[in-house]
Amino acid sequence: MRLTYNAIAGGSAERLAALSDGVFAVAMTLLVLDIRAPAVEAIHNELDLHRALIALTPRLVMYVMTFLTLGIFWVGQQTQLNHLARSDRSLTWIHLWFLLAVCMTPFSTTLLAEFTRYRSALLIYWANIALMGLTLFLSWQCALRSGLVKPEVSQQTSDSIKRRILIAQCWYVIGAALCAINTYWSIGWIVTIQLFYAVAPRLPRRRNARPEEIAARRG
Amino acid sequence: MRLTYNAIAGGSAERLAALSDGVFAVAMTLLVLDIRAPAVEAIHNELDLHRALIALTPRLVMYVMTFLTLGIFWVGQQTQLNHLARSDRSLTWIHLWFLLAVCMTPFSTTLLAEFTRYRSALLIYWANIALMGLTLFLSWQCALRSGLVKPEVSQQTSDSIKRRILIAQCWYVIGAALCAINTYWSIGWIVTIQLFYAVAPRLPRRRNARPEEIAARRG
Amino acid sequence: MRLTYNAIAGGSAERLAALSDGVFAVAMTLLVLDIRAPAVEAIHNELDLHRALIALTPRLVMYVMTFLTLGIFWVGQQTQLNHLARSDRSLTWIHLWFLLAVCMTPFSTTLLAEFTRYRSALLIYWANIALMGLTLFLSWQCALRSGLVKPEVSQQTSDSIKRRILIAQCWYVIGAALCAINTYWSIGWIVTIQLFYAVAPRLPRRRNARPEEIAARRG
Amino acid sequence: MRLTYNAIAGGSAERLAALSDGVFAVAMTLLVLDIRAPAVEAIHNELDLHRALIALTPRLVMYVMTFLTLGIFWVGQQTQLNHLARSDRSLTWIHLWFLLAVCMTPFSTTLLAEFTRYRSALLIYWANIALMGLTLFLSWQCALRSGLVKPEVSQQTSDSIKRRILIAQCWYVIGAALCAINTYWSIGWIVTIQLFYAVAPRLPRRRNARPEEIAARRG
Repeated sequence: MRLTYNAIAGGSAERLAALSDGVFAVAMTLLVLDIRAPAVEAIHNELDLHRALIALTPRLVMYVMTFLTLGIFWVGQQTQLNHLARSDRSLTWIHLWFLLAVCMTPFSTTLLAEFTRYRSALLIYWANIALMGLTLFLSWQCALRSGLVKPEVSQQTSDSIKRRILIAQCWYVIGAALCAINTYWSIGWIVTIQLFYAVAPRLPRRRNARPEEIAARRG
Repeated sequence: MRLTYNAIAGGSAERLAALSDGVFAVAMTLLVLDIRAPAVEAIHNELDLHRALIALTPRLVMYVMTFLTLGIFWVGQQTQLNHLARSDRSLTWIHLWFLLAVCMTPFSTTLLAEFTRYRSALLIYWANIALMGLTLFLSWQCALRSGLVKPEVSQQTSDSIKRRILIAQCWYVIGAALCAINTYWSIGWIVTIQLFYAVAPRLPRRRNARPEEIAARRG
Repeated sequence: MRLTYNAIAGGSAERLAALSDGVFAVAMTLLVLDIRAPAVEAIHNELDLHRALIALTPRLVMYVMTFLTLGIFWVGQQTQLNHLARSDRSLTWIHLWFLLAVCMTPFSTTLLAEFTRYRSALLIYWANIALMGLTLFLSWQCALRSGLVKPEVSQQTSDSIKRRILIAQCWYVIGAALCAINTYWSIGWIVTIQLFYAVAPRLPRRRNARPEEIAARRG
Repeated sequence: MRLTYNAIAGGSAERLAALSDGVFAVAMTLLVLDIRAPAVEAIHNELDLHRALIALTPRLVMYVMTFLTLGIFWVGQQTQLNHLARSDRSLTWIHLWFLLAVCMTPFSTTLLAEFTRYRSALLIYWANIALMGLTLFLSWQCALRSGLVKPEVSQQTSDSIKRRILIAQCWYVIGAALCAINTYWSIGWIVTIQLFYAVAPRLPRRRNARPEEIAARRG
């Protein structure tokens, strides 16, 4: 009986993690290329430089916002991969689609930073985030179905991973829907979500975690 | 007796994997730099933005296509390296040539995206893919000959790795040959191949795999 | 009782290290893109090329200086992570803010290289360094408080990690304060600090280290 | 007794390897950005495209040459790090200087590609290579002196590592010296060296290696 290539392809969760770290690292850093220092010729004194730097603020805010988005999704992906015993070809490809969405964030963010008042820019930005959420959700479903999850991972952990993605995506959908009123409402809402996830890391309630969770988490 | 430097050089398959992940990550992300947001001055309303975004579609399709190509070859290389116990200098250099071809994909894709109607652009794109396939094939041959493959890897696995490369390369050769008719036929064919490999990841038939395969796969 | 997602998120210190290495690697390399080779049209003989290359020197010095800064903070972060048994969500987010500051260094350096005479450029450069120092300090505090540090790490080690950050940041504050006189004084002072940390790596006094330190260091 | 920070800093050879892989990956890929596809407006038929692609050949050759140089030094660094049990602060900083030289290669290569006839361009290119060789040599000396080398590494291995660096650097010095006649002689000589190291990977004479070498190599 011939062995299907698909049965042996893409089995390393470590390689998947390493590629993902590389893609996230480049995506996080590339964006900063768009924050160009002001042209020397246009600056004649401190005041000019102050004004030029203040003019860069929207771009800077946008950069921080996208860095946070990438950070949120990086933590989300890491949490999933930490709970996997191994990978397979299907899971690998779901994560490659996830990484494709990650690679698009520099584009969709620049677009939104340039066209803050335009709904299509905002909807593309949201579609990008939605694609990342969708692929992460599918990835966990696939891992459960194909038995790739570490045996010690409890139903509780699994539920909390799925719940987190669904809740976050609901917040983003509301943000996107707000553009029916005004894109600035949407942007304000999305910034608030990001800051909530990134700036308010409460003390982990380690007491709640069961020993096998902690073991899985360390894996 | 003097020890040849070559006998001790390049022995780490992990470092090779790490460098490869880095190169793939950068190549996957760099391409997105070519999808520039439309110039602010040219956009006066939502309709303008829609048109400008639609004008970006060919470039976007090309980007997705190349991301998929890189993904296919990344999975292919990963599958090989997962089955190796260690590396040596010859194998390392074959993979460096593979990575050189990987680094060229942003160039060859941009070329094809700009000159879709030109046969030389298509043939360069194909030559790039063919070089990746050739080096991967040689790498497996070298690993077998130099005894770098894990002892538990069966003949079946080895055959399926070689078969996969040969079959995929045949499809690409047909795609390249189609440019005798028209480059659009070639591009359509190649896009179909990529989607077939990337979008249709059937459930892995884990039942077929023998225990030692699974062990090797997890390595 | 529902398991909080936060209790299982971001538990891998290895993934954090891998993302950090990626971000540092890109930030270290991106800067070199700003050192452009002189335009071919402007060069007619060796002397022209000499002059053009000498004109690049300030940019080159700035590049080396920032590479050193990134190197210093990379060593600092690595030393901390080497002493951690694991990570958690809070610690991960503190390090993501640290990496945000790392990503900003290509911008703040370019700014300072273009506007050496302007105080705001220097203060932004210093703020960037201060943010890196602050997040590293908070990270160690957080690791101690949340029990993420390896059990064999002694109080002595912990103190020396904190002391190092505080002392280095004091030197940088003095450098920043010197711009009250002149920005060139500040730049000279900061360059001296960097060289002190980077060029003068005395022989490690391994005799002093206690066995458990050495074990932790190797971890 | 206060513990010196320097005694605990930079102890992870794995982190050093990971950062290096990242820097090499970015440096290898960045260069390709300089091979720009020809402008669409200038191309009206296949013949135009052929000519434009042929005009790109020198740049392509230069790219391949630098990729090979980076590959040679990546293999060299990897071989050293594979033989280390751990790192320390001095060794880490020597490797950071090595990586600084690696980061400069995109610049020095572009310079040489633009100014093939100019001696200063060639000498800068050579100085870059010499700096990489020097730091690698110092790194091995430092590792020996500080006892960082794995205990099973023989004197023979150590000698062969040093010999390799010295011999390679001698070849490069001859290449640089040839510019007294003509820079094209130098370039031809250097290309020959690179190809010799990269294209002719003879079968490793594994028979010669002693068991402990093989163990070290796999480390």
